[in-house]
Amino acid sequence: MTITGLALIGGVGERGNDGFFKAYDPAALAPLEPCFHMVDAAQIDRACELAGAAFDQFRNTSDEQRALFLDTIAEQIIGIGDALIERAMLESGLPRARLEGERGRTVGQLRLFAGLLREGSWRDVRIDSALPDRVPPRPDMRMRLIGIGPVAVFAASNFPLAFSVAGGDTASAFAAGCPVVLKAHSAHPGTSELVARAVVRALEICGLPAGVFALLTGTGNGIGQALVAHPAIQAVGFTGSRSGGQALMAVAAARPQPIPVYAEMSSINPVFLLPRALEQRGEEIGAGFAASLTMGVGQFCTNPGLVLAVDGAPFERFCSSAAAALGASQAATMLTPGIAASYQRGVALLAAHQSVATLAQAGHAEGKGGAALFRTSGAAFLAQHELHGEVFGPASLLVACKDATEMCQVAECLEGQLTATIQMDDGDIDQARRLLTTLERKVGRILVNGFPTGVEVSTAMVHGGPFPATSDGRSTSVGTGAINRFLRPVCYQNMPQALLPESLRDPNPAGIWRRRDGALGKE
Amino acid sequence: MTITGLALIGGVGERGNDGFFKAYDPAALAPLEPCFHMVDAAQIDRACELAGAAFDQFRNTSDEQRALFLDTIAEQIIGIGDALIERAMLESGLPRARLEGERGRTVGQLRLFAGLLREGSWRDVRIDSALPDRVPPRPDMRMRLIGIGPVAVFAASNFPLAFSVAGGDTASAFAAGCPVVLKAHSAHPGTSELVARAVVRALEICGLPAGVFALLTGTGNGIGQALVAHPAIQAVGFTGSRSGGQALMAVAAARPQPIPVYAEMSSINPVFLLPRALEQRGEEIGAGFAASLTMGVGQFCTNPGLVLAVDGAPFERFCSSAAAALGASQAATMLTPGIAASYQRGVALLAAHQSVATLAQAGHAEGKGGAALFRTSGAAFLAQHELHGEVFGPASLLVACKDATEMCQVAECLEGQLTATIQMDDGDIDQARRLLTTLERKVGRILVNGFPTGVEVSTAMVHGGPFPATSDGRSTSVGTGAINRFLRPVCYQNMPQALLPESLRDPNPAGIWRRRDGALGKE
Repeated sequence: MTITGLALIGGVGERGNDGFFKAYDPAALAPLEPCFHMVDAAQIDRACELAGAAFDQFRNTSDEQRALFLDTIAEQIIGIGDALIERAMLESGLPRARLEGERGRTVGQLRLFAGLLREGSWRDVRIDSALPDRVPPRPDMRMRLIGIGPVAVFAASNFPLAFSVAGGDTASAFAAGCPVVLKAHSAHPGTSELVARAVVRALEICGLPAGVFALLTGTGNGIGQALVAHPAIQAVGFTGSRSGGQALMAVAAARPQPIPVYAEMSSINPVFLLPRALEQRGEEIGAGFAASLTMGVGQFCTNPGLVLAVDGAPFERFCSSAAAALGASQAATMLTPGIAASYQRGVALLAAHQSVATLAQAGHAEGKGGAALFRTSGAAFLAQHELHGEVFGPASLLVACKDATEMCQVAECLEGQLTATIQMDDGDIDQARRLLTTLERKVGRILVNGFPTGVEVSTAMVHGGPFPATSDGRSTSVGTGAINRFLRPVCYQNMPQALLPESLRDPNPAGIWRRRDGALGKE
Repeated sequence: MTITGLALIGGVGERGNDGFFKAYDPAALAPLEPCFHMVDAAQIDRACELAGAAFDQFRNTSDEQRALFLDTIAEQIIGIGDALIERAMLESGLPRARLEGERGRTVGQLRLFAGLLREGSWRDVRIDSALPDRVPPRPDMRMRLIGIGPVAVFAASNFPLAFSVAGGDTASAFAAGCPVVLKAHSAHPGTSELVARAVVRALEICGLPAGVFALLTGTGNGIGQALVAHPAIQAVGFTGSRSGGQALMAVAAARPQPIPVYAEMSSINPVFLLPRALEQRGEEIGAGFAASLTMGVGQFCTNPGLVLAVDGAPFERFCSSAAAALGASQAATMLTPGIAASYQRGVALLAAHQSVATLAQAGHAEGKGGAALFRTSGAAFLAQHELHGEVFGPASLLVACKDATEMCQVAECLEGQLTATIQMDDGDIDQARRLLTTLERKVGRILVNGFPTGVEVSTAMVHGGPFPATSDGRSTSVGTGAINRFLRPVCYQNMPQALLPESLRDPNPAGIWRRRDGALGKE
């Protein structure tokens, strides 16, 4: 499949009218062919209008039709073959095994949502029977969730497949019956085009309207702001920087009709090392931590950027073990030269900070990031908010607390996070319980004796958390719960059976879980 | 029970430090004793701090404990006896039967949420079993919803009991485990104090921390803005005007940590009269419509402020029937002189509008609003946005469309609404289906052959709708679904059973519905 550099609007490749850019090979430090043409305001407008026009037909497809559509996208992505992996490797600098795994995850996500549609309980159907003899009589009332409307999705830099064109945001929006206008990430436009054409092909195969999906290419902030401001767009999915997410939140809030923004933005994912665990397994934990920190050159939202423990000999053993592993690691190619430069700046700022000691620092190189490990005290961390920010890449800050109480104070002063991790043994349970009460308020996922990198795509996953981890701590962007972001409830009162959607009709023709007069059942 | 005019902070009556105001009898047009002392910034701050400090203990109570608390509030409200109804009558001008009914509804709401807590599925528990043999192994993951944090609730003017101190916002927040800092409505501060003391008494009886609830008294915008801006507050419930709701949305979005606002604001609740129904029952529908419009002096969020039909003889019969009923109606006392004055201004503007004819207008009087019925054309309505606004009170605008297509165009140009109503007979089903597709995108509840006033408190109710009906069209403020506004998900990965909350433990000790590996059950 040739990469054309065209946007895809209304199912047709279309040359952008606003200049062009090229993808970049971060390993070879060289631009890649071909040119990608950037869409202008009129093209953004048209993509959004088509999405709005396609919404009613798309949301009124049967759940089975949308399930088949998701399955077909998965097949079409697999059908691209190795060309997809090769282009993604070129554009991201990520290794083959990682990208093959990510493709599997992407396809698995699409199929997971297809399964969710077939199971049916995602509609949250509720039926309150009429009570004609009550005074006043109670009408028949039936509720279901429906799609919120066209969704603007912003692809992430760090997952060119799983958080991109046909990633979790797109899959969950499609499942909900929402068209998607996708802003490709400028770091992997060729990968994006290949996947986008798989989506367009799936629309054709399934006989669905072309307006259900568009791929917009461009760089800079203007395209995203125009997209979020467009009246046809009813929700936003975004994975990226805090500044980028907050800019979109501001645009969405300033619209004549404000819309929800689901932005996954910033997290330092604290790891708490409790005393017994540290004593028993300090060195082992240090080695596991170093492996988690450097996986994928630290370019994960769930990278463990902060470690907390009570100071003392066991903590020193952890520090030595982690520092030895990280000091011996090699700098590796980061996703883009911009990310590498930003990482190197962040590391330099920490290294120069008066309250911070450097424990290990692998050398950098152009476009490459080396692991870095820093240390500070609980008191310094509590007093200096600039130590709380995310440094995107394989850097982490160890905080030596004077006692368990100070460790709890540090937990309490943290901003919202995607994850928190507790390393503990049986004897640590009381302290873990104390921490847990604070962490439940601060984070979306709490792990015991693992590391936060590695995000399962499943039913119980929460990949979200209080601000600024995400713009909306009521949501998850990974797992089946992600569909809830793009749904809203509609109640039908005294509606004739012939007018009701199938999921609300008697006698439950789809055989799905429904809540009748408060009780769940499949009657 | 004597009314003291004190705020309630930390369970103790406390004199506000920022001046005072008096309640007002809108029927007698006279102020009421005693003085209510307005809280200052330090008192608002203290109430919020106490709510924040009480959150962990309150959210970690058992569901049964919170259910008992809700039941106890209900008992305590009943225990106030007739003093509550009499004060509410004085402050609101509403008749005894309405307020007794509203008290029943308020108590019923509290008990509904108690039942929801006992049933348990509101936690949306999800368990994904560990797969130790998978490569890589899948960890054990368990998800539940928890309370979002302290909630600021703003009482409404038009329901001094059911959307006030212990109304739906407060009941659903308490059920979720969230403390409430309540801003009393200045139109019924005495009623508010009586109910607030019932809540405080219930906290004492149940042995719950006093910080779980505070009553703040005051007038003006400052108190509300300070409340929403306070860092301890994590969500907002509001029922009131569009300008008031949007002001709070702006404060919430501008916080260092933005928070969700659930503001129920503005709706004109269109009623569509389809041809067969109009032909068969035009006069009957006209009479029913007039009764719905004037119920409670039109002071309902779901008042039918807009009626659409195709022009012709059947529509004329509807108009005559409605105009006759409304013209013969008497002006009645509105909730406050301010609401009456605003209503009279709104009616005068419509009466003077060049595209609007007056079909009926009962005379006003000081503090009283008379019903008013206006008529315009579909073309004029489509062209003039000032005709789309809400006039809070017993006024409605009839729109004579030239054909069914124009009626659909009018539906398409409407802003978000709480409700839409279709009056139809069997022969109207095709046109109803066409309208339904549009209305599902525009409103939260669609009724057939009824009137929108009268909002059931049940499982399937949606009292919400796309902006500007509410600030967040994903929500309902009435019915069990209201609890979802104040919840967020937390995932526990590989957590020892001893640390897990009861609802997530094996083997389901609470016997609640849970989703295990995707399948619902009570295993």
